Amino acid sequence: MGLMIKKCIESIPEYVPGRTVEEVREKYGLGEVYKMASNENLYGTVPGLAEILSGYIKNIYYYPDGSSLGIRKKIGRTFGIPVENIIIGSGSDQIIEMICDSFIDPGDNVVITEPTFSIYEKAALKCGGFSLKVPLSGFRQDIRGLVGAVNKNTKIIFLTNPQNPTGTNITSEELNYVMDNVDSSVLIVIDEAYYEYCPEEARIDTSGFVMERDNLMILRTFSKIYGLAGLRIGYGIGPLEAVKALNRVRLPFNVNSIAQKAAEYVLDHGGHIAKIRERINSQKEIYYNVLDENNIEYIRSYTNFILIKTGKNSEAIVEELLKSGFIVRPGRNLGLPGYIRVTIATEEINSKFLKTFTEIYKNFGK
Amino acid sequence: MGLMIKKCIESIPEYVPGRTVEEVREKYGLGEVYKMASNENLYGTVPGLAEILSGYIKNIYYYPDGSSLGIRKKIGRTFGIPVENIIIGSGSDQIIEMICDSFIDPGDNVVITEPTFSIYEKAALKCGGFSLKVPLSGFRQDIRGLVGAVNKNTKIIFLTNPQNPTGTNITSEELNYVMDNVDSSVLIVIDEAYYEYCPEEARIDTSGFVMERDNLMILRTFSKIYGLAGLRIGYGIGPLEAVKALNRVRLPFNVNSIAQKAAEYVLDHGGHIAKIRERINSQKEIYYNVLDENNIEYIRSYTNFILIKTGKNSEAIVEELLKSGFIVRPGRNLGLPGYIRVTIATEEINSKFLKTFTEIYKNFGK
Repeated sequence: MGLMIKKCIESIPEYVPGRTVEEVREKYGLGEVYKMASNENLYGTVPGLAEILSGYIKNIYYYPDGSSLGIRKKIGRTFGIPVENIIIGSGSDQIIEMICDSFIDPGDNVVITEPTFSIYEKAALKCGGFSLKVPLSGFRQDIRGLVGAVNKNTKIIFLTNPQNPTGTNITSEELNYVMDNVDSSVLIVIDEAYYEYCPEEARIDTSGFVMERDNLMILRTFSKIYGLAGLRIGYGIGPLEAVKALNRVRLPFNVNSIAQKAAEYVLDHGGHIAKIRERINSQKEIYYNVLDENNIEYIRSYTNFILIKTGKNSEAIVEELLKSGFIVRPGRNLGLPGYIRVTIATEEINSKFLKTFTEIYKNFGK
Repeated sequence: MGLMIKKCIESIPEYVPGRTVEEVREKYGLGEVYKMASNENLYGTVPGLAEILSGYIKNIYYYPDGSSLGIRKKIGRTFGIPVENIIIGSGSDQIIEMICDSFIDPGDNVVITEPTFSIYEKAALKCGGFSLKVPLSGFRQDIRGLVGAVNKNTKIIFLTNPQNPTGTNITSEELNYVMDNVDSSVLIVIDEAYYEYCPEEARIDTSGFVMERDNLMILRTFSKIYGLAGLRIGYGIGPLEAVKALNRVRLPFNVNSIAQKAAEYVLDHGGHIAKIRERINSQKEIYYNVLDENNIEYIRSYTNFILIKTGKNSEAIVEELLKSGFIVRPGRNLGLPGYIRVTIATEEINSKFLKTFTEIYKNFGK
């Protein structure tokens, strides 16, 4: 008799790692390869970080601060939130996992958009739960549809603002509609991984709402604009009751020391981060212009990526881009066949990409 | 109506973080404070690591290799194991969590020793399972008792070799007894966090056994002798079926880039690690001698810690040690009231500790 693996585990899709720069370089015999597939900040993190961290490496034989208190205090001061309402994860995906671990019993469901970030469903499936999926409506989250899908077995509704993989936003009115119409026993999670890329005027004071309500939680990350994807650190701000539950399931030393120190450093450099946002947003305008000139459709984005319509030859376009040294995310892998998702990179890389892509599109597009 | 947190989560003990060096320094107004409570390698990690890592920090804006392939290959070559049988966790505690996530449905149980490392039970409780606890027998794991406790709802038996918090070992005969007498549908997990501290002659070729069986998995860590506790990285070697299940529940980027690179570096320095083992083991002999001279009872240890009998005034002894700048782990917190668990530190710290402790013991012992 074989090992008795849980039935629900078999329903989790097997993880297929994306193509790495090295793989693509080797396969196509290329010099430069540009990874524009995972929405990293290709300008890099805040300068000076390496010098700061080298001092901490000599003490790396000690376990980390299990409560991540230093970075929680800094986040608390930055956003005016008590430390008790803040939880740190090894990436915000780990917080998503802790949320499902705390709320999802077998048979429970989470309400999500289709397509969306894959971890919401994965974390629910792991617990024997499942997801109720509400399709995008005009590339935006269907807020009324999501609220309408909630049933008596719904424990969590996951919103993503701005959304992934479309880059579209949720308005303040839409969020109010959710908060007014979802039962207070359902946890509303807003994943704000790309929050810092939003222009100030498009942001919602979600951390303020968290403190006024008992069922709202927001997630943010240091992996995107802050440029710390390799270190694994994100945070959640939520009601005490939920944060307390998450702390019970959390492993005692879930976040490494270097990530904690690095996050404190980058959070102190808001000016630098604002400049990254400006550069990315002005580069996005160049994308829009070039795509418009070439009659290529796309979705306007509140993030550092852009969803571009590539049509029925999308797979061939992805392959041609690879041959030219550009790794993008095929829409098919994201539930949007006929599209590609492209990370807005640096000025130089974007310019090369747009030149190459528009040429390929002329041959393969439509 | 409040949030609907899972019932099983409430049964997980709330996490109480240990005392930090800073806390103790402040509370007692001390200069030097020595943390001898978490069994870190106080000689530090392999020299030269900081220089190696600084080169990687500049690329930290990229996500890690989600498959941790580099370190898996190095582990595979070191122990003669195919990479497919190796899984990497953000600490081996994360692998324990993945194992329970993959095998424990509500109502299932894990068989463990009491007391033992706390995460086995925590991970089972999180899944709605529970633990069947078999008491220590003469400070050793009761192998026949553990095997006898397995019932039809047992999915995992956790062994710890050497054991924590006692430091005692499992013999080759004992392991054979487990493998011969536990149903092949039950996963046998051997947590070998302190493996590298064992003298060569006391080690069992467990990685060899893994490859011969379908239900044996071993866990090791870079947090102990390798001195990387702050970075969070450990590994598991197990049957393909189990590793495949764990990979389904594993988050795509569960191990940070710096930890992966650091682990590759330290694994290349076996000679340095052997010297650490020799130093710790000869320091342990000094502990034994001093404790014997003072008629203080202790358990001989295969690890870098030692369990010392402090008697009914154990709490007062712990407090006096704190006042003198030594943080040790009170046995009460480990399920062994009347004992303390002390990390074998460097020559200098050990010598100070033994002097202070034997004096305190004269006043408070027995």
